[in-house]
Amino acid sequence: MKVLVLGGDGFCGWPTSLHLSARGHEVVIVDNFARRDADVELGAPSLTPIAPLETRLAAWHEVCDRDIGFRRLNIAEDYEELVELLDTVRPDAVVHFAEQRAAPYSMRSSAHKRYTVNNNLNATNNLLVGIVESGIDTHVVHLGTMGVYGYGAAGVTVPEGYLRVRMDGDDGSEVEQEILYPPSPGSVYHMTKTQDQLMFAFYNRNDEIRITDLHQGIVWGTQTPETVRDERLINRFDYDGDYGTVLNRFLMQAAIGFPLTVHGTGGQTRAFIHIRDTVRCVELAVTHPPVRGERVRIFNQMTETHRLIELARLVSHLTGTPIHHVENPRKEAVENELRAANRHLLDLGLQPITLEDGLLREVTEVARRYAHRCDRDKIPSRPRWTEPPATAPAPPADERPDRGDADAVPAAAKS
Amino acid sequence: MKVLVLGGDGFCGWPTSLHLSARGHEVVIVDNFARRDADVELGAPSLTPIAPLETRLAAWHEVCDRDIGFRRLNIAEDYEELVELLDTVRPDAVVHFAEQRAAPYSMRSSAHKRYTVNNNLNATNNLLVGIVESGIDTHVVHLGTMGVYGYGAAGVTVPEGYLRVRMDGDDGSEVEQEILYPPSPGSVYHMTKTQDQLMFAFYNRNDEIRITDLHQGIVWGTQTPETVRDERLINRFDYDGDYGTVLNRFLMQAAIGFPLTVHGTGGQTRAFIHIRDTVRCVELAVTHPPVRGERVRIFNQMTETHRLIELARLVSHLTGTPIHHVENPRKEAVENELRAANRHLLDLGLQPITLEDGLLREVTEVARRYAHRCDRDKIPSRPRWTEPPATAPAPPADERPDRGDADAVPAAAKS
Repeated sequence: MKVLVLGGDGFCGWPTSLHLSARGHEVVIVDNFARRDADVELGAPSLTPIAPLETRLAAWHEVCDRDIGFRRLNIAEDYEELVELLDTVRPDAVVHFAEQRAAPYSMRSSAHKRYTVNNNLNATNNLLVGIVESGIDTHVVHLGTMGVYGYGAAGVTVPEGYLRVRMDGDDGSEVEQEILYPPSPGSVYHMTKTQDQLMFAFYNRNDEIRITDLHQGIVWGTQTPETVRDERLINRFDYDGDYGTVLNRFLMQAAIGFPLTVHGTGGQTRAFIHIRDTVRCVELAVTHPPVRGERVRIFNQMTETHRLIELARLVSHLTGTPIHHVENPRKEAVENELRAANRHLLDLGLQPITLEDGLLREVTEVARRYAHRCDRDKIPSRPRWTEPPATAPAPPADERPDRGDADAVPAAAKS
Repeated sequence: MKVLVLGGDGFCGWPTSLHLSARGHEVVIVDNFARRDADVELGAPSLTPIAPLETRLAAWHEVCDRDIGFRRLNIAEDYEELVELLDTVRPDAVVHFAEQRAAPYSMRSSAHKRYTVNNNLNATNNLLVGIVESGIDTHVVHLGTMGVYGYGAAGVTVPEGYLRVRMDGDDGSEVEQEILYPPSPGSVYHMTKTQDQLMFAFYNRNDEIRITDLHQGIVWGTQTPETVRDERLINRFDYDGDYGTVLNRFLMQAAIGFPLTVHGTGGQTRAFIHIRDTVRCVELAVTHPPVRGERVRIFNQMTETHRLIELARLVSHLTGTPIHHVENPRKEAVENELRAANRHLLDLGLQPITLEDGLLREVTEVARRYAHRCDRDKIPSRPRWTEPPATAPAPPADERPDRGDADAVPAAAKS
């Protein structure tokens, strides 16, 4: 199949592009290098040394004699070029990763909030309007987030996108309806993803655009079978307070002996998926398109749920690194339950990589290997969700790891 | 109270500004004249001759010795100026009308879809981010639309914003929750209003911004007690296929003897409100702000619901104008029921103007008076919601009016 990968140079986009190419699809990457620009802005490059995109593409050609196309484009702005590209390539599927994807980054400042809204919403709208205008019959595979569900309703497994509810009818009878799951975003970034859902629903209903929305959990891991084939193909590894996802941050911290920074109690439950499963899920979605007229397909792209403190303890146990509780910058419940359905992708054949299996390998093969490139100053998460109150609340007390061999907290972590 | 009226030169914004000023509030209008620009773009000016804003403001000063401030600003773009204005004026309330507000206009072309999304979402986000950044404690009163509800669930009265639903818990028990009413927008314009709701919910929860969202029905009528005080204060009257609201279009058509154009069967049920009630409702919202920490208040700002065909028959009966059924450009149900709650504004003291009372006066005092300014070519609604199918379906047959004296359809209407 011909596949356009929007945002194909990023953390999920790059390994997805390689995986789709390895599986025989004809891939064209579209990217404006916004993520590389953010590296420069934050002074926090990937732990792994990522090559320029042209080097990456040349290396891919060398290792497997396959070509991946590339077009530099800002789809949130360069609408006419986007339409021309859709018209020329006439892709069977468009994988849409071209959004600012970090919650802390979206909360850094007014400018970051505004950028995230402007970029993400115009990118999605331009893509959908462009598909309508070009008249091509393509399938949009969008990377959404489990974060659209918020905490979900207590005691109810989060379904895949749609929720069956009952309400009181005017005549006293009970009326049943299936609705898009009521969104409850926790950051400006998450908010844009809930707004994307409304665009998908509208253009799907009005113009019959075929769409699969993948509500992804927090990705961990770095490498895929394709990215390990040459060091020039290596994937990003972010450990900074903005773009680093929680488990990768723990792995990095463990690799350099920095205490694992847990925000608040760590009682927050989140959904996870390994990057190798991400790329497989996207290919499963691409190769199983909805039919025209079908409503937006929503899959929960996650394989496990864990409390953050459990993950910290697991990494602590594997590596002997202590745990350090810091104040939670987010405005969120101290603890939450999360159970989520994920049958759709399992039914399509996904065989998940579990955390227990892959975790230590990530520490040794990636985090330790590039530990010398780590800048410890970039580890703390600085964006605050709201203005600090006049008197700052005391941070929660440290929790000592359950192993006795690693409870000394280095001075650096206490700053 | 000090009130900023964003979009204060428009159809609802202008009479609202005058009403607030007449009631003793200190008003500053913010506008970028986008609505006047659209007149030029579409070649379809207001039926009523609207004066330049400075003339309007000077006339207002003449008739009642009150000043209204003005700042020309595009709040979707000029963020820094917006923050500076918020900081300087420190308004008690910000009334937010600064959005592209016509469904047909939002569906005209790719450019119009993109403009509506970009303008409306950045406008709302900039306002909310700007309030957070400036640190002022103000109250946002937003003009939303009943259209966010779509058709609603059959047999269930549309509540004011929030819906109590029940769902199955994992342990077999029933879980009850109050949710934001599941949105179902019918155009790109309506879609942006459903996306606005998610912004309001987020910034209200995260930053405790106080917000009242007025889900307004279709406005009819033109003049208010303030706009009739001098012809230079007259309000807009739009009758064109983009910006003309359905009842005003019927009134105009009746005034010039053009058949009343009913889209499809006319079985669509919609909610209505007179412009005089609009301005009162906004003042009621401004003077009854939520307390800090209160969730977004949502009021249904409508006073009556009617099927479009009933309205056409009423106008036909009053004026002897025949009814002409034309193909419905919208992708919507042929017929729908709509019952909606509107206790909140009635409880605050609203005494609605009913359609029967005011209708004929609108025909004679506004539509007939300025009928010589009508351009018949602008009456048909041209935007299509989707690309036309290869073979266009036959338009529905005309319905003859129930009075025998007016069933001749002029040739112009058949083109």
